[in-house]
Amino acid sequence: MSIPATPTAAAAAVLDDASLDVMFREARSANSFSAEPVDAETLQAIYDLAKFGPTAMNTSPLRIAFVTTAEGKARLLPHIFEHNQTKATQAPVVAILAVDTEFHEQIPTLFPHAPERKALFEDPEFRIPSANFNAGLQMGYFIMAVRALGLAAGPVGGFDTAGVDSEFFADRPWQSKLLVNIGKPGENPWFDRLPRLDYATATLTF
Amino acid sequence: MSIPATPTAAAAAVLDDASLDVMFREARSANSFSAEPVDAETLQAIYDLAKFGPTAMNTSPLRIAFVTTAEGKARLLPHIFEHNQTKATQAPVVAILAVDTEFHEQIPTLFPHAPERKALFEDPEFRIPSANFNAGLQMGYFIMAVRALGLAAGPVGGFDTAGVDSEFFADRPWQSKLLVNIGKPGENPWFDRLPRLDYATATLTF
Repeated sequence: MSIPATPTAAAAAVLDDASLDVMFREARSANSFSAEPVDAETLQAIYDLAKFGPTAMNTSPLRIAFVTTAEGKARLLPHIFEHNQTKATQAPVVAILAVDTEFHEQIPTLFPHAPERKALFEDPEFRIPSANFNAGLQMGYFIMAVRALGLAAGPVGGFDTAGVDSEFFADRPWQSKLLVNIGKPGENPWFDRLPRLDYATATLTF
Repeated sequence: MSIPATPTAAAAAVLDDASLDVMFREARSANSFSAEPVDAETLQAIYDLAKFGPTAMNTSPLRIAFVTTAEGKARLLPHIFEHNQTKATQAPVVAILAVDTEFHEQIPTLFPHAPERKALFEDPEFRIPSANFNAGLQMGYFIMAVRALGLAAGPVGGFDTAGVDSEFFADRPWQSKLLVNIGKPGENPWFDRLPRLDYATATLTF
């Protein structure tokens, strides 16, 4: 499978300061959203960036439901904890980030040179933690992809996952893990930046 | 806690094509590394980007051990599955990404306006899944931060986590989850890009 290749120029480039601000330093979780819509092409563009992030054996277990219509919002909102409902109502799109608990069915597509690896994941005791771990990485890539396209992301963990799953995923083995409000920030969208752990607390060097 | 603020220009910017390539479209998991060193300032710069990614209640449970010396590598390598040892030997730095299972001890620092929230996490049945989920998001941000600084990241899941924990974290409640080789790509560093799921398979719209 190893293909000789010259590292691309892109692989050696460092992002400029403005881009580092967009992605990390100035990026914030928006708590309000403007009415400006987010079109279907942009949602696909978010996916088409986030999908490239690495996962173990390319298993890519993240699945996404984009809730964009008034009808969809009406189905979603009752499952969101009350203090999170206003921002989900405002946001033009709420993405339900979910894990495909049967992701191994896609291994022949995703790992075509070794489709037999699917058998490694028959046991749910191994498969489900792997799904959760790798989908978690992908949720990080997803939030970064939203920001890369100039939109604010507002991750929300306060919702009834079982309620969302039975409302939206009754016909498929997807389990919701995180909501992400997506749009342009509205009025007073940011809280104060909270502290982060200093380098000496969060890291060791050997 | 809400502070009126004007969205910054950065929050509305879209990354240029070259930056989208660096972060997503052309970025690849390197399988070989050059001898070019990665200095301590760069490791701190990676952390100082990745730390800003959002987590639930700012809990930030990711911890990192950077293995940079020959002595450190000698302690790490016996715990890495054999087929992953060569690239970990070549890489100037191997980051051990870990979860602090006692992350709630930092809540008074990280969530200073409501330090009593620490009590929410006393029960390990709730605390450990929360730690794993939020650290997983942060591992996604970490890989993105490595790329943003012009370095190749090579995530490796094939290692003995218990062995690494007892070797490096015997004195603290950290649990290793993922290794990330960090450096400049070496010779023939990339495999062929594997397929990704198409938009219609991985997403729904409501």
